[in-house]
Amino acid sequence: MRREAMKLWRGGLLATLAGDSGWGLIPDGALLVDDAGRLAWVGPSAEAPAAAEVVELQGALVTPGLVDCHTHLVYGGNRAHEFEQRLQGVSYADIARAGGGIKSTVAATRAAGEAELLASAQRRARALLAEGVTTLEVKSGYGLEAATEARMLRVARQLGALGVDVRTTFLGAHALPAEFTDAQAYIDAVCAWLPELHAAGLVDAVDAFCEHLAFSPAQVACVFEAARRLGLPVKLHAEQLSDQGGAALAARYGALSCDHLEYLSPSGVQAMAAAGTVAVLLPGAFYALRETKLPPIDALRAAGVPMALATDHNPGSSPTLSPLLMLNMACVLFGLTPEEALRGLTVNGARALGLHERGQLVAGQRADFCIWAAGHPRELAACFGHNPLIERVCQAEQAPQGEP
Amino acid sequence: MRREAMKLWRGGLLATLAGDSGWGLIPDGALLVDDAGRLAWVGPSAEAPAAAEVVELQGALVTPGLVDCHTHLVYGGNRAHEFEQRLQGVSYADIARAGGGIKSTVAATRAAGEAELLASAQRRARALLAEGVTTLEVKSGYGLEAATEARMLRVARQLGALGVDVRTTFLGAHALPAEFTDAQAYIDAVCAWLPELHAAGLVDAVDAFCEHLAFSPAQVACVFEAARRLGLPVKLHAEQLSDQGGAALAARYGALSCDHLEYLSPSGVQAMAAAGTVAVLLPGAFYALRETKLPPIDALRAAGVPMALATDHNPGSSPTLSPLLMLNMACVLFGLTPEEALRGLTVNGARALGLHERGQLVAGQRADFCIWAAGHPRELAACFGHNPLIERVCQAEQAPQGEP
Ligand SMILES: [Zn+2]
Ligand SMILES: [Zn+2]
Repeated sequence: MRREAMKLWRGGLLATLAGDSGWGLIPDGALLVDDAGRLAWVGPSAEAPAAAEVVELQGALVTPGLVDCHTHLVYGGNRAHEFEQRLQGVSYADIARAGGGIKSTVAATRAAGEAELLASAQRRARALLAEGVTTLEVKSGYGLEAATEARMLRVARQLGALGVDVRTTFLGAHALPAEFTDAQAYIDAVCAWLPELHAAGLVDAVDAFCEHLAFSPAQVACVFEAARRLGLPVKLHAEQLSDQGGAALAARYGALSCDHLEYLSPSGVQAMAAAGTVAVLLPGAFYALRETKLPPIDALRAAGVPMALATDHNPGSSPTLSPLLMLNMACVLFGLTPEEALRGLTVNGARALGLHERGQLVAGQRADFCIWAAGHPRELAACFGHNPLIERVCQAEQAPQGEP
Repeated sequence: MRREAMKLWRGGLLATLAGDSGWGLIPDGALLVDDAGRLAWVGPSAEAPAAAEVVELQGALVTPGLVDCHTHLVYGGNRAHEFEQRLQGVSYADIARAGGGIKSTVAATRAAGEAELLASAQRRARALLAEGVTTLEVKSGYGLEAATEARMLRVARQLGALGVDVRTTFLGAHALPAEFTDAQAYIDAVCAWLPELHAAGLVDAVDAFCEHLAFSPAQVACVFEAARRLGLPVKLHAEQLSDQGGAALAARYGALSCDHLEYLSPSGVQAMAAAGTVAVLLPGAFYALRETKLPPIDALRAAGVPMALATDHNPGSSPTLSPLLMLNMACVLFGLTPEEALRGLTVNGARALGLHERGQLVAGQRADFCIWAAGHPRELAACFGHNPLIERVCQAEQAPQGEP
């Protein structure tokens, strides 16, 4: 380590989240960042090593950078009109018959060029970054045809130029497109697209939607087999609207995460615990859909399943761009403690992406962190509709202005 | 009107909210602002009069400026610790016994100097302004003693220097302070403070909290009588936790608004309709308290009671600084249409403050308006945890930098 290239941040209240529980608070704490973008040292300012460059935090709060581990950030159009129609009394069924719902987003996404998709996704990503996101997962799944799925994933990759670490997830098995009547035939097509998308460097993980209105466990298993053949990790939209046994299936494939989980069964909890699968809770969709069945938080806690949080940003069921609001909704709606919620948006969010080198302010970890105008980390969760971010430090380098 | 001093904004999608219902959309519309800060003309850009200065809106959405007609923005401390305790399983009763709840905010507010109160209130007000608030109501009620109530109201007035029109409301009858055991004796004190506060120019309206854990209708009536003697309009925190008949009482005093209203009775609705009293709905508190009883929206609609929305920002039950989130919550939680919600945060919010010269983009109205990166006003309500504000135009002049 070349000491002359190091940068010391000192005089802040650090919420390190070190270990498996607790805030890991260090009052008047300091962080030393090495020239490889790692935390070289974390501790009390008074004991901090010397460094060439020193930044005074002036008592501000420092947390790990936020990880938004489940988003559908790339798409064409929006669904505000359907939102209005439902509140004017039009039924879901009538909206669907008129080509609404996911169908309208698929049509708009297929019709949009890459530049248009990128411009709107960049606007959304900037809003997430403005609240402290340093790692961002983005799924495909509004193309449902090879070319558009690839376009979505290329756009997702390009979001990294904003200065955020992007992880892409192939979600071809999101819904059955109108041109297919046979779900298995579509699943076969999805599996056939995967090797080329992977060879193009566009896929970090593979996801599917296991639900009666999407795909069966057997169909999902075909997709997971295709992922396994390529050595790709899997994730699953599981038990959001009903218990399909999706979590247990995903656990058999060593899934990184199962997401939503309102209808997760006790055996599903046990399967996830045994496999080390992360439970990704999505309170934005729970709120917007006025869902009343809660995910089994106590059972997940008791089984030691790590709980992550994400925005699930999408144009239909969770059109939110506020990870901080998810902290509050996880507490208010799901009963998480503020500490559990912040772990969900940092260290456990990272684990849901298979990333174990970030999410805690501990020597050796990646030096992604956030500086907040707050006196205690619980304040981040206690308020809603607020953004006390002062500065976001992210090792993902921003591309020069003017480039995508 | 001196045409040379006028400024024309052209080429935007105007949501005028003209009349009693409908968006009042003008595609490719223009606004002419005169040198008195009034809208001199509103209509299609193609028909717009000439003006010395022209601003191109480039297709952006324009709405009336937002009116946050119910806030408790000035206070000391915060209650994040209690939020965390409740989620860790500590009961409300135990928190109250330990001096928590409103008592802790009263203690922190009494202990805070004027500069400290101003600095924290300015931070909060800036967040509201960043989402488009051009008129802001601020209540006292965390002093519960003459000097601190006056300090709160002075601080509220000073927020106007940020460039927002501030309306102050005296809420001495918010809770019974610990030094009183006799509620009527405290009410008598509150009534005795009012003339001096009014003479100092600190009171635009008078409010009270009518609830079994606060003050009875008879006690509220004493406060309203004191207001009437001074010619001050009244408002009421009514039927939030139970039906106290507060709305009917307030209507008898010609109240500008009754606020909360989850437990409002049919006769209360009729009394409000007859008196022209505005119903101020506060979905942030409903959400944060996990209230399940809905305000009687259909009955309010049927009776023609104007519905307003506000953040109800306060450190306990509604620690939010996002009026846009209230738009979404009013739709998702209360079933308002996006148009009703936006009217609630503009023209009806203004009416709840007795202001009839703002809240619509109509010639003659005050030229407070917002410019948004949105294709339709319903998008403002359909998303949550987002802020597409491009620019806020407010006739309240900002004080020179460095001044309070
Ligand atoms: Zn999803
Ligand atoms: Zn209030």
